[in-house]
Amino acid sequence: MKNREVERQISILADRTVDLHSVHELRSKLERSLAENRPLRVKLGADPSAPDIHLGHVVPLNKLREFQDLGHLVVFIIGDFTGMIGDPSGKSATRPQLSREQVMVNAKSYQEQIFKVLDPAKTEIRFNSEWHAPMKFEDVIRLSAHVTVAQILARDDFSKRYAASQPISLVEFLYPLVQAYDSVMIKADVELGGTDQLFNLLLGRELQKTYNQEPQIVMTLPLLEGLDGVNKMSKSLGNYIGVSEPAREIYGKAMSVSDALMWRYFSLILCMPESEIAEIKKAVQIGARHPRDVKDELARKLVAKFHDENSAAQASEEFTRIFSQNKLPDDVPEVRVKTAGGKMGVVDLLVQAELAPSKGEARRLIEQGGVKIDDEKVSDIHAEIALKTGMIVRAGKRKFAKIFCE
Amino acid sequence: MKNREVERQISILADRTVDLHSVHELRSKLERSLAENRPLRVKLGADPSAPDIHLGHVVPLNKLREFQDLGHLVVFIIGDFTGMIGDPSGKSATRPQLSREQVMVNAKSYQEQIFKVLDPAKTEIRFNSEWHAPMKFEDVIRLSAHVTVAQILARDDFSKRYAASQPISLVEFLYPLVQAYDSVMIKADVELGGTDQLFNLLLGRELQKTYNQEPQIVMTLPLLEGLDGVNKMSKSLGNYIGVSEPAREIYGKAMSVSDALMWRYFSLILCMPESEIAEIKKAVQIGARHPRDVKDELARKLVAKFHDENSAAQASEEFTRIFSQNKLPDDVPEVRVKTAGGKMGVVDLLVQAELAPSKGEARRLIEQGGVKIDDEKVSDIHAEIALKTGMIVRAGKRKFAKIFCE
Repeated sequence: MKNREVERQISILADRTVDLHSVHELRSKLERSLAENRPLRVKLGADPSAPDIHLGHVVPLNKLREFQDLGHLVVFIIGDFTGMIGDPSGKSATRPQLSREQVMVNAKSYQEQIFKVLDPAKTEIRFNSEWHAPMKFEDVIRLSAHVTVAQILARDDFSKRYAASQPISLVEFLYPLVQAYDSVMIKADVELGGTDQLFNLLLGRELQKTYNQEPQIVMTLPLLEGLDGVNKMSKSLGNYIGVSEPAREIYGKAMSVSDALMWRYFSLILCMPESEIAEIKKAVQIGARHPRDVKDELARKLVAKFHDENSAAQASEEFTRIFSQNKLPDDVPEVRVKTAGGKMGVVDLLVQAELAPSKGEARRLIEQGGVKIDDEKVSDIHAEIALKTGMIVRAGKRKFAKIFCE
Repeated sequence: MKNREVERQISILADRTVDLHSVHELRSKLERSLAENRPLRVKLGADPSAPDIHLGHVVPLNKLREFQDLGHLVVFIIGDFTGMIGDPSGKSATRPQLSREQVMVNAKSYQEQIFKVLDPAKTEIRFNSEWHAPMKFEDVIRLSAHVTVAQILARDDFSKRYAASQPISLVEFLYPLVQAYDSVMIKADVELGGTDQLFNLLLGRELQKTYNQEPQIVMTLPLLEGLDGVNKMSKSLGNYIGVSEPAREIYGKAMSVSDALMWRYFSLILCMPESEIAEIKKAVQIGARHPRDVKDELARKLVAKFHDENSAAQASEEFTRIFSQNKLPDDVPEVRVKTAGGKMGVVDLLVQAELAPSKGEARRLIEQGGVKIDDEKVSDIHAEIALKTGMIVRAGKRKFAKIFCE
């Protein structure tokens, strides 16, 4: 009976993974877990400097949730130790130094977001400064004796930079060790990450062995393409859907992905079984379903996952009303505009109405033909607009403002 | 006036150096030193696991003494921090872990030996655990941000090992940093070492710059060949003359060096000016002096340097008596031998009389024809010797024992 349960868990857990080191070790860990009624400890590490969780992060979170649904425990590690140091070489823009307060704010934000996917009752949150901050130089020396330079230099990005004579700070060699030591400290049974994390996760395995621990199972998951369909989803590229974005945003952004890409989102974010996806694909192919309807299904399901069914239905209706019927959304925000003389340049108007973050962005929008005032396109960036209360300004597909003259 | 003094100091200090980074920096440091009446701080680091100082170490010690004679201060650093950690990877036989007690015993031994060359009044002894032991992981990260992997991997021995796919532990990358940070902590103006230390000394320069200190002058000195005339003098090769060895040993070992090598010892250990050496060479060439007499001069001067003139004269006389006239030294040690039946195997006799450290060594000595009993060579390792009180046993050129039967 037990073995059948083990095979059932393996088939669920191995699904959608890219690397899995190794299935037979996972089997023996699951057997023991069931025999001893002891949940596996499944680790995910998070960078404390980027607390905005988007669909790219949801890929591993979904897998963690599957572990939880099978009775296992998630250990979510917030890497505050290195976060508070930052990159002391000052060469990396991605490692700003964070204060303890910022780390705590980010940690709180993390929890609010990850619990949209994870089960809080089966999640342990740990800060790695707990064990790293008290370590002395002597401890670091003992720790670093366990790895070789060649081992770390073998990491894909390091070897490329070394070959290209681009500087690698010695501190960057220490960071993978910090992450690997986390696995030792929390006695991880499994560690998850994107495929770009494979090296770091394997180093955790090696380090655990030298500390006489059973090595963790390493599981990597695909990197999700962003809205552009080309690059990895990331905040800095702006091609992301954040899990805490308003329902309307999530819905609208999902509707903007290409027909080819939407199947990845069905699979990796909604965890729809491949057989079901194949059926929908077929229905589209033979013309039984329109791709737009399928995308609406994707977008609704995404909203439902991160908000609720109700918001999903509303977002879908509103989207249809605006774009198919070219109508206004239910709640166009009213913007008070101060004006002397009743006229204003269109660029200033967009910025004041908060439809563009800057004058440059406003000019770009106008030049691309994305600006309409009372349904008339404005394409001259020098246009002077005669303001009147009730006037509707539209920027891009989904941003509106109703003007109220003061 | 000052400038003339600076040039005088430079000509003394630059003499016999291999690398000097750089003369113009040394000049400006000396100018400031004289103007402010502030002695330069001249650093030498020592490995606390090998407290036996031999002539190889005397080469830099001589240079330090020249600094002291010009009014400068020597900072002698005992690297106890890494010494007490050892090599945690367990791969290096040269880095055993030392207890605090061993370190202190070694440190005391160091002082007794180095003060045969250095002036204690102008020497500051420091243990680097003073600043390294309190450092936290965080401090190590900040420290290691200042160097790049390529910088350290460029070190000759590392690059060779990396190219040959021999493992380099990450801990070995941290050790040069420890040594370089010592320069920052003691605000070194100059650091000295053998030519094999060039990389580590230059790293100290780089690190000082990142800590906004004026970089230290780096000076390397030649590596002295050992008694074999081929390999670097080292304890492990047994080709050394220790500064604390008895006068007779120093004299005898010096007499064993080749005619070609003795000039190096005149220059590097006795600091004899090259012009003077050239004169003696010429005298030998034209037959005005016998090489044996020149070597006697070298040997006597070495004994005088590490003991005194008196011991030098005695050692010389005794050596002449034994080897030239084949007589016994003044004080042949008496060895009490217990024997049942009055006979003993020659191998056992050599070991009991402490003329050989082991039976294997005793056999080797006999086979090489180095053993005589009452002036008769013994070449059979199975020979049984009829013991009698007053019998003289000789092993090699300089070891004797007078037997006293009990």
